[in-house]
Amino acid sequence: MIVLMKHDTAPGDIEKVMEKVRSLGFLPHAISGSQSMTIGITGNKSRIDTDLFMSMSGVEDVIQVSKPYKLVSRDIKREDTVIQVGEDEVGGKDLTVIAGPCSVESRSQILEIALMLSEMGVKFLRGGAYKPRTSPYSFQGLKEEGLEFLKEAAVAAGMHVITEVKDTETLPLVMRYADILQVGSRNMYNFSLLERIGEQRKPVLIKRAFSATIEELLMAGEYVAAKGNYQIIFCERGIRSFDPLTRNSLDLTAVPLVKKLSHFPIIVDPSHGTGAWDLVIPMSQAAVVAGADGLMIEVHPDPSVALSDGFQSLRPDKFKELLERLRVISPIVGKTVRAPQSSTLVSNN
Amino acid sequence: MIVLMKHDTAPGDIEKVMEKVRSLGFLPHAISGSQSMTIGITGNKSRIDTDLFMSMSGVEDVIQVSKPYKLVSRDIKREDTVIQVGEDEVGGKDLTVIAGPCSVESRSQILEIALMLSEMGVKFLRGGAYKPRTSPYSFQGLKEEGLEFLKEAAVAAGMHVITEVKDTETLPLVMRYADILQVGSRNMYNFSLLERIGEQRKPVLIKRAFSATIEELLMAGEYVAAKGNYQIIFCERGIRSFDPLTRNSLDLTAVPLVKKLSHFPIIVDPSHGTGAWDLVIPMSQAAVVAGADGLMIEVHPDPSVALSDGFQSLRPDKFKELLERLRVISPIVGKTVRAPQSSTLVSNN
Amino acid sequence: MIVLMKHDTAPGDIEKVMEKVRSLGFLPHAISGSQSMTIGITGNKSRIDTDLFMSMSGVEDVIQVSKPYKLVSRDIKREDTVIQVGEDEVGGKDLTVIAGPCSVESRSQILEIALMLSEMGVKFLRGGAYKPRTSPYSFQGLKEEGLEFLKEAAVAAGMHVITEVKDTETLPLVMRYADILQVGSRNMYNFSLLERIGEQRKPVLIKRAFSATIEELLMAGEYVAAKGNYQIIFCERGIRSFDPLTRNSLDLTAVPLVKKLSHFPIIVDPSHGTGAWDLVIPMSQAAVVAGADGLMIEVHPDPSVALSDGFQSLRPDKFKELLERLRVISPIVGKTVRAPQSSTLVSNN
Amino acid sequence: MIVLMKHDTAPGDIEKVMEKVRSLGFLPHAISGSQSMTIGITGNKSRIDTDLFMSMSGVEDVIQVSKPYKLVSRDIKREDTVIQVGEDEVGGKDLTVIAGPCSVESRSQILEIALMLSEMGVKFLRGGAYKPRTSPYSFQGLKEEGLEFLKEAAVAAGMHVITEVKDTETLPLVMRYADILQVGSRNMYNFSLLERIGEQRKPVLIKRAFSATIEELLMAGEYVAAKGNYQIIFCERGIRSFDPLTRNSLDLTAVPLVKKLSHFPIIVDPSHGTGAWDLVIPMSQAAVVAGADGLMIEVHPDPSVALSDGFQSLRPDKFKELLERLRVISPIVGKTVRAPQSSTLVSNN
Repeated sequence: MIVLMKHDTAPGDIEKVMEKVRSLGFLPHAISGSQSMTIGITGNKSRIDTDLFMSMSGVEDVIQVSKPYKLVSRDIKREDTVIQVGEDEVGGKDLTVIAGPCSVESRSQILEIALMLSEMGVKFLRGGAYKPRTSPYSFQGLKEEGLEFLKEAAVAAGMHVITEVKDTETLPLVMRYADILQVGSRNMYNFSLLERIGEQRKPVLIKRAFSATIEELLMAGEYVAAKGNYQIIFCERGIRSFDPLTRNSLDLTAVPLVKKLSHFPIIVDPSHGTGAWDLVIPMSQAAVVAGADGLMIEVHPDPSVALSDGFQSLRPDKFKELLERLRVISPIVGKTVRAPQSSTLVSNN
Repeated sequence: MIVLMKHDTAPGDIEKVMEKVRSLGFLPHAISGSQSMTIGITGNKSRIDTDLFMSMSGVEDVIQVSKPYKLVSRDIKREDTVIQVGEDEVGGKDLTVIAGPCSVESRSQILEIALMLSEMGVKFLRGGAYKPRTSPYSFQGLKEEGLEFLKEAAVAAGMHVITEVKDTETLPLVMRYADILQVGSRNMYNFSLLERIGEQRKPVLIKRAFSATIEELLMAGEYVAAKGNYQIIFCERGIRSFDPLTRNSLDLTAVPLVKKLSHFPIIVDPSHGTGAWDLVIPMSQAAVVAGADGLMIEVHPDPSVALSDGFQSLRPDKFKELLERLRVISPIVGKTVRAPQSSTLVSNN
Repeated sequence: MIVLMKHDTAPGDIEKVMEKVRSLGFLPHAISGSQSMTIGITGNKSRIDTDLFMSMSGVEDVIQVSKPYKLVSRDIKREDTVIQVGEDEVGGKDLTVIAGPCSVESRSQILEIALMLSEMGVKFLRGGAYKPRTSPYSFQGLKEEGLEFLKEAAVAAGMHVITEVKDTETLPLVMRYADILQVGSRNMYNFSLLERIGEQRKPVLIKRAFSATIEELLMAGEYVAAKGNYQIIFCERGIRSFDPLTRNSLDLTAVPLVKKLSHFPIIVDPSHGTGAWDLVIPMSQAAVVAGADGLMIEVHPDPSVALSDGFQSLRPDKFKELLERLRVISPIVGKTVRAPQSSTLVSNN
Repeated sequence: MIVLMKHDTAPGDIEKVMEKVRSLGFLPHAISGSQSMTIGITGNKSRIDTDLFMSMSGVEDVIQVSKPYKLVSRDIKREDTVIQVGEDEVGGKDLTVIAGPCSVESRSQILEIALMLSEMGVKFLRGGAYKPRTSPYSFQGLKEEGLEFLKEAAVAAGMHVITEVKDTETLPLVMRYADILQVGSRNMYNFSLLERIGEQRKPVLIKRAFSATIEELLMAGEYVAAKGNYQIIFCERGIRSFDPLTRNSLDLTAVPLVKKLSHFPIIVDPSHGTGAWDLVIPMSQAAVVAGADGLMIEVHPDPSVALSDGFQSLRPDKFKELLERLRVISPIVGKTVRAPQSSTLVSNN
């Protein structure tokens, strides 16, 4: 159930509603829009009598949500939610470009990439330190050392760190280094992990599982929100299909669907979504035009020697070309792509 | 095998090579590029000795094609093939916009739509007269009468007709009315129909079957080309997947893949591809940016009373909005969208 | 709509009901059960008034069928329909075993196989003469010559011929040779072909398309039945899925589903369904126990030299082993497998 | 790499080989067959020189395994591995029948079911205490109390407990109550959980994820085996597909495939695999005949009031009928199904 508060409600009235919810043994979730506040109620097993709240001071309306997802639903908030990451945003006017290698491979590798990306105007650095791999015998990431290298590189380059949380055991550690936590496709149904992350107050990017429906993706977000973490970013990364020509089948329709059904941002990972670097550029452009709030791109200085996923990584020059194209395209859908740092300096290429 | 002719080869030399191919009992296919000619050879059961041609006058090179598709492959022609339809083109600089109702329902319905679309700048009119339907008890189209209404409307509006050929029996009839023949998803594996169409000299649009791989789609084109019809347009219209929220899963990656592997154009049908009118606009934009040569959109003056597929048809005002957006976006990928006719006139209704 | 006639209705009363249906401009379908007759009515665009028939002599009840498939539905006939093929049956107590090579390759090849299979007790000989192939350059079958060889071999061996009808053009020819017409997976949505076959009075086996739902498979049967051909056999042959280890994903659940929803028999093709000969034996057994009325198995004297599908064909000794296993298993589900002819002779190897 | 020891090798020689492996910094895995021992080696990053072991006493052969799965592969052990659970076995001659409700709902519910199942001859009791649910607001199981009820019921009925481990946090708790740990479909890619379970010495049943390939399923087992737990049971439970008529698409071909590729047993869950109780009986029979080592069936005294998955649960009488059918069918594939207790005793409660 949702309690819509009036535009100019006094904080005290809001608190009274929340107290009322708690007194009934339920959980109140204060979701703030640009002008008013909505209070989502979870934890109830059956319908709550709307009259309990309708008469309270400052209450505009009380609404039952019929969809299985409540707190991530557009029903609770008409406007887009913008996630704040330092001075930057996800879901706002800036197109969020997340880039970096599949895995952190060494201090110098990640530092080199970070500085290069930063110069191109990229603010979000990705890199896997704990890698869930199909085989127990494959490279599993540099682990804590990888996190250190990643953070160090990001700080040096003035970027934010996004990296995967593999399990609840390493969550506290990853919390120390990451600015955005990433839940990988294989963990989208790992509800215990989602709940632990829900208890944190840090943005989380949730990747769609290999064959998850859009509703299941939204429900994964609901697990996080139900615990009080309302900084959720969804990520489409391709579904499993039958065509051997592509690693996955990038489902761009997920973008307008998620935007329609949820107030949280959605970004697209065309690197995993296609598995082929030469499909990354056209599909990145398409994703932005379909309404994506951002992109997550694998970039590697020398894809041929990457420890994982080299075939789908862009070389720096190709990535630069992609950014230039995005700078042209994004304004059409109301987004902007940050200029390269060099352009703010005297000699602009 | 492919015989590449030199840039300035005399027509006589080309004919000699083709004669040589025929004399060996094989079929020569002359595929002309902007500056030179390529001769594809089919009908051979085993490898042909390249020396047979290398020494002939005007021959630049002789190449074995390892891919299963030969004549539709980029290997035989590096440049894009542009299909001429009257004074208009598919695969050229103009974004091909095909629009109209799912079914031709009456003379007045299709005429009204045609005039409206034409005024908006649309040159290609779609409308089903022979409808393959899952149920034998569903509306199967107005048949020949539908073709007449469609052609009449197109002529009145100055448009080209594209309509589905359901079977070989009605092919001669459809040939009389259509400017572009359409092979529906259910007929993509109907090789007998493809061969009959291959014997025609009229453009054909081939829709991807529900779970066809890209290679199978290209092979359907190869069936047409092998019979000498080199006016092929591929069409992505969504694959079958597991998510009940959409009718199909629009596979936009097919666009850059087909552009990479084939010299023939590809267009996208986001109406069937999503099955929901409010997803058509974002996915149309995404398709164009991914590199599609055109779009096929279901438009109906009153979707709520359409005899088929109303839920995925755009109302005229929404379609007009889509065209306006496409006019802004297309130039970014080097395409243009025709201006509305009304805009060139003084009084704009 | 269905008109159920009383057990002991006079033929004249049945004819009167059928005449009444015709007089209304609809089509009557007389479907006979073991004790009573049901008259299915198709061709109506809207609901028919049940009172029109309820008062007629011999009428037991009048029922509206809510499912999209009417004549193939269990609603119209509670008992299993048994298809008569010469002295043999499909859908009765005998497990229908259809065997033979993927393609008829030569007179001696098919004769040798037929005699061998016949000796093992097999009554249905399969063999492709018109082969729909993904590539126009692949072996397309021996065509009419293949049909001749096939028929000749079947006659010599005392077997029935089942072979694929590729298109309406060759249907009359195939009709002359085949005892059961086969509609391949690629033609399951070829409604024009289904309608032409519906006008014949010969059994037809319809293979499920690569990604057809069970309802679509039943609707393909409905197309045949709506034209008056009530001798339909459905065939599960694997759906398209994501695992590269198998050619298709054999969906055995289709068997109990089709048995539940339709009165027509269903058989299983584990050769195409798995694409691997060593999976054919376990999956054949499983199919029978799941309730299949029969099996269609690719058998080749020397799979390594087969012109098509060798990797999924059983060698004769393996096929013999399969038959022996089926003879043990089938009785458990109330089916019997014909004994080898040799067992009825004095000493035959 | 695999070191095959000779039939009559002295334990000391085996220990020397294992010591040698450890001295190289790798992990030795002693996998015992009926007559000889095999030592699998993991932890190496590159190929190991086979000569290092070939000359050692007792060594028969040294083999490189090319498949990505090593310890679960048939290459390391030709015979079937039989998992011992108390006095009972999984993968041996007895068909393993696991039955019980989806969720433990109350002490009396699970006790009643356990006694009833035990009387029917069932030795393995299933019941969820920690339930991973798509919605955070759905019933999540009785948790530790559920485990207590489940264990108590199993002890009273003389049965073994199999129950799902939802996460690493609750693993120690579940270890105290479960005889077989279950990894659910949603956790098949949860490598951290698999590794923790690999460190235990208790049988684990791993359910295939919604769209996991067979190779990925085997790799999940490899994660467990690589940590030294060689008591693995695979479980096919249906893959995600496109047909709305069934909850999942039960992929029975997985059974002979896993039996071919791995020495570990595989069982089938037709309840989740079909999502419809009336498909459970035919598909259970089919699974056994396809070679499954057992079945996992949801049984509920009153499915209409079950807190989860009622629609796919068998009523006790239907389950009893299934067992009777399995007793007839299983011997054909060399398996036996335990007789009901009541049939062997004069008066058993």
